[in-house]
Amino acid sequence: MGERSLLNQLIEALRCLPGVGPKSARRIAFHLLERDREGGARLARVMAEAMVAIRRCSRCRTLTEHEVCALCANPNRDGSLLCIVEQPSEVVAIEQATDYRGRYFVLGGRLSPLDGIGPDELGLDVLEARLRDESIAEVILAISPTVEGGATAQFIADRAARHGVRVTRIAHGVPLGGELEYVDGGTLALAFSGRHAL
Amino acid sequence: MGERSLLNQLIEALRCLPGVGPKSARRIAFHLLERDREGGARLARVMAEAMVAIRRCSRCRTLTEHEVCALCANPNRDGSLLCIVEQPSEVVAIEQATDYRGRYFVLGGRLSPLDGIGPDELGLDVLEARLRDESIAEVILAISPTVEGGATAQFIADRAARHGVRVTRIAHGVPLGGELEYVDGGTLALAFSGRHAL
Ligand SMILES: [Zn+2]
Ligand SMILES: [Zn+2]
Repeated sequence: MGERSLLNQLIEALRCLPGVGPKSARRIAFHLLERDREGGARLARVMAEAMVAIRRCSRCRTLTEHEVCALCANPNRDGSLLCIVEQPSEVVAIEQATDYRGRYFVLGGRLSPLDGIGPDELGLDVLEARLRDESIAEVILAISPTVEGGATAQFIADRAARHGVRVTRIAHGVPLGGELEYVDGGTLALAFSGRHAL
Repeated sequence: MGERSLLNQLIEALRCLPGVGPKSARRIAFHLLERDREGGARLARVMAEAMVAIRRCSRCRTLTEHEVCALCANPNRDGSLLCIVEQPSEVVAIEQATDYRGRYFVLGGRLSPLDGIGPDELGLDVLEARLRDESIAEVILAISPTVEGGATAQFIADRAARHGVRVTRIAHGVPLGGELEYVDGGTLALAFSGRHAL
């Protein structure tokens, strides 16, 4: 069990997983080696391929191993609706939780000039080409209600307006079943400013 | 994002990791793809090799990619002491926490005839050959104090006695800093039955 044994290399390499410290890395390594070598070998194979082959969809910028992702390629999706999210994981979450049947566009972040993240870094040139060339009736913004998110939403709303596309924003507020006293202050403030008549 | 996309295959394959459900698998996959492809590629490479190359040391049965592990091959370890543990992870734990400088033998389990685990499955034939052929002065049992662990310890103690080797057992009891009221009943009972004069 020398410092650079293959076992120690495995334990160290496992620490690239989020939330995995030295103890859990050890536990995972022994679990795979003693109880699930087949699963470990399959994971290694798929992970090696994924790290190389998965890239951004050329149309919506979500993660895919194809030039165009399955959602963009699916002719049954409603091309008049375009939902704009920050991260690919949010596409998965919306697909699993809602009955939205339109298409998506993934920014990969929020406008943040100080960090060098401008419109090009978020693919807003690609987005504008789509607003111009496709028959999009409505852009649905599912961007986090932060200062940077607000600036990003405003930027997109301006571009959409130029092309005569309607812009909406998903509702932010107190979650279903959320007790007021346990909801964070920012959410509560949003819920108040976003109140509407009954 | 079709059912069998490479991304979904990665998320499914990650579930072989202990304690990783669908949500954490998704979180891990996106983390690696968006923030640490290099770490993911390294992990895939090391894991693929480890699943194939790591086997049991022919002398002590711990996990190693060599015929004989680094601990057994190290001439500076005290060959007169042999600590017997159940699992390879326990070798690592003892190495990190104690200043024990002897050698090890890893059973890989406990005697359990009903589950088909007899002396051969635990390498007790290999152990007996070592007791016969090597200059071992003391066997230190670090086996869990359960019914099956007790039977396993007794079996080894009998064999050691045949070869004139002294047998000791590590102390079990209330852990350092453990408050009596929070220690489990079995440990507390062991601590009482193992009491000694001051
Ligand atoms: Zn796409
Ligand atoms: Zn060894």
